[in-house]
Amino acid sequence: MSLTHPFRALPLSILAISLASLAHAADLPVRPSAGDVVKLSKPSDWRPLDPNNTLYMELPTGRVVIELAPDFAPQGAANIKTLVREGYFDGLAMLRSQDNYVAQWGDPNAETKPKSLGSAKAKVPGEFTVPMANDKHFVRQQDADGYAPQIGHSNGFPVGRDPKAKTTWLAHCYGMVGVGRDNDTDSGSGAELYAVTGNAPRHLDRNITLVGRVVSGMPLLAGLPRGGEAMGFYGASEARMPIKSVRLEADVPEAERSHLEVMRSEAAIYKDVVDAARNRGGPWNKFTPHYVELCNAPIPVREHPKD
Amino acid sequence: MSLTHPFRALPLSILAISLASLAHAADLPVRPSAGDVVKLSKPSDWRPLDPNNTLYMELPTGRVVIELAPDFAPQGAANIKTLVREGYFDGLAMLRSQDNYVAQWGDPNAETKPKSLGSAKAKVPGEFTVPMANDKHFVRQQDADGYAPQIGHSNGFPVGRDPKAKTTWLAHCYGMVGVGRDNDTDSGSGAELYAVTGNAPRHLDRNITLVGRVVSGMPLLAGLPRGGEAMGFYGASEARMPIKSVRLEADVPEAERSHLEVMRSEAAIYKDVVDAARNRGGPWNKFTPHYVELCNAPIPVREHPKD
Repeated sequence: MSLTHPFRALPLSILAISLASLAHAADLPVRPSAGDVVKLSKPSDWRPLDPNNTLYMELPTGRVVIELAPDFAPQGAANIKTLVREGYFDGLAMLRSQDNYVAQWGDPNAETKPKSLGSAKAKVPGEFTVPMANDKHFVRQQDADGYAPQIGHSNGFPVGRDPKAKTTWLAHCYGMVGVGRDNDTDSGSGAELYAVTGNAPRHLDRNITLVGRVVSGMPLLAGLPRGGEAMGFYGASEARMPIKSVRLEADVPEAERSHLEVMRSEAAIYKDVVDAARNRGGPWNKFTPHYVELCNAPIPVREHPKD
Repeated sequence: MSLTHPFRALPLSILAISLASLAHAADLPVRPSAGDVVKLSKPSDWRPLDPNNTLYMELPTGRVVIELAPDFAPQGAANIKTLVREGYFDGLAMLRSQDNYVAQWGDPNAETKPKSLGSAKAKVPGEFTVPMANDKHFVRQQDADGYAPQIGHSNGFPVGRDPKAKTTWLAHCYGMVGVGRDNDTDSGSGAELYAVTGNAPRHLDRNITLVGRVVSGMPLLAGLPRGGEAMGFYGASEARMPIKSVRLEADVPEAERSHLEVMRSEAAIYKDVVDAARNRGGPWNKFTPHYVELCNAPIPVREHPKD
C-alpha cells in the first residue's frame, strides 16, 4: 500500500468560492466559524422533522429525539414504528453503556421471559447497505475517508457510498442509532437499539443496520453510568435507567412536541458550514488542517423559531 | 483536489505476515480480534507507568489515572507536576462537560479570586508540536489520515508527524489530556486541563498543548452531566464535581497505587493488535474495511498481573 500522504490541502479559494453562495457573505468574518454561518441561514435552509419518522424516547431524565431514516432502512424503520405504536418499549430499560462506544436499550428479560413483539417481526433482513438510488439529496463531502470510497450527507444524515457497487449506507458517527443483532444478519428486529456515544466506530459501517440519528438528548445517553459487565452491559446488581415510553411524534399532541428542525444538507449554506469546520479561523486557531472528517462535520439542529 | 478514493485495501497477506511475529500464532483464529492478540502477549510487551509521570486525580466517584508525555510537552508536563506537588488541584472542581467534546477542570474562581499557582509558572509556551527527535520509539501506522502527513504511536501515545517540518505532536483521540488556553499561545499554564470525551476533535491538533492521556477512569469524566452554559461550562446553579486531590504516583504509598501497565507500542505484538482492529474477522463481522483510523487503534492498558 502507499505510505505517502494521499490528502491534498484544500486551497483557501474553495472557501471564498463557497461563501459566495451566501446572500449575506459580506457580514462574515474572513474565516467564519460554523456557528457564524448558521446565523445567516434562511428559514428555507431548514426542514422540520417528519412526525411520522421521529421518535420521542422519554427517560426519567428527559426526552431523547430520534429521527428515523427510512430511505436507508425501510424494513428496519417500519418494524421499529410498529413496535413503538404498540407500546413495546414502554417500561423497558437501558441495558448497556460501554465507554467510548454505545448505549443500548431494550428488554432486560429478553433472554428469560421476553416481552411480546406484538405484530412486529422477530427478524428483519439486515439493511447494511441500500441501493444508491435510495439516497436522496446526496451531497458529497470533498474530504478523503478511510472507510468509504465516497462520503457525504443525505437529508441531514452522514453517509458512505460505493459507486462501483452502487450502494450507500449510513455512517457510524456520534449519535447514530442502530439495530442490535447477533451473528445472523437478520437477527436484529429493532427491539434492541443502540446509539453511538464515543469515537465514531466506523468499522461497524456495512456490518449492521443504522436506522437514524439522535437529534436531541444525546447527553442523556452519553452520560449514563457505564455498565460493569463485559461490553458495558449492566449487571443484575446495577440500576438500569428505565424507559418511560417511546412515542412516534405523530402520535404526540401538538403542544407536547419538540418542534425541531434540521439544516437541509442539500442547501447551499450547508457547504459553507462544512467549509467553516474544514478551514477554521479566528483568533484562537493557530493551525488549520483544511480537512474535516465526516463525523466532525456538524449537522445543525434547532428549535423552530417562535413566530 | 482528488475526489477519487485514495485508500487501497490492505491485502490479507499483510495480516499473515504480521502474525508471524507472534510466538504462539498457531493458537490464533484465522482473523483474531485485538483481544485475542493481547491474550498472547508476553510480560516484556508491557511497560509499567512511570511513577514520576503519572497523575492520580481522585474524584468522589473514583480515581482517574493520567499518564503524562514529557517528550511531547516538556515544559507543560513540568509545570503541571509543580502544580500537583504543591497541592494546587486539591479542592478544585470539574468546570465543564461539553457533550461530544471535552471535560475540563480547574479553579472555579479563576476569574474572580484565583487560587495561587505557587511556584508554578503562570504562562508556559505552547508546545503544539515538538521536534521529531523527541518522539521516541515511533512506529508508523500504515493508514492514511486527513489531519497529518504521518500517523503512528510513540510510547503508547497516538501521534501525528510532518517529516517535512520535522515536527511531531500528540493527536486528539478519546481520553487525551490537554492544557486549556486563551488566544495567546502561552496562555495555558496547566492549571486548567481537559480530557477528550467525544469524537476525536483532531482539528485541535497543532493548536493546543496535549500533555498526556487518561489510561484509567474515563467513564468518570465522560459520564459527567453536561454543563448548561455555553460550551458546556457549569452555571452558578449547577453542581460541580469536586476534585479531592491530584497526586503524582511517586508521592503515593505503594499500597495505594494502581499498578497499571501500557502495551509497548514499539513491541512487535502491537502491530498485530492494530492489524486485528484493521482486519476484523470472526462470525459477527460481515464486512471488513481493512483500515483503522488512528483514534480507533486500541492502546491496551492492564493491571500488572499479580505474582
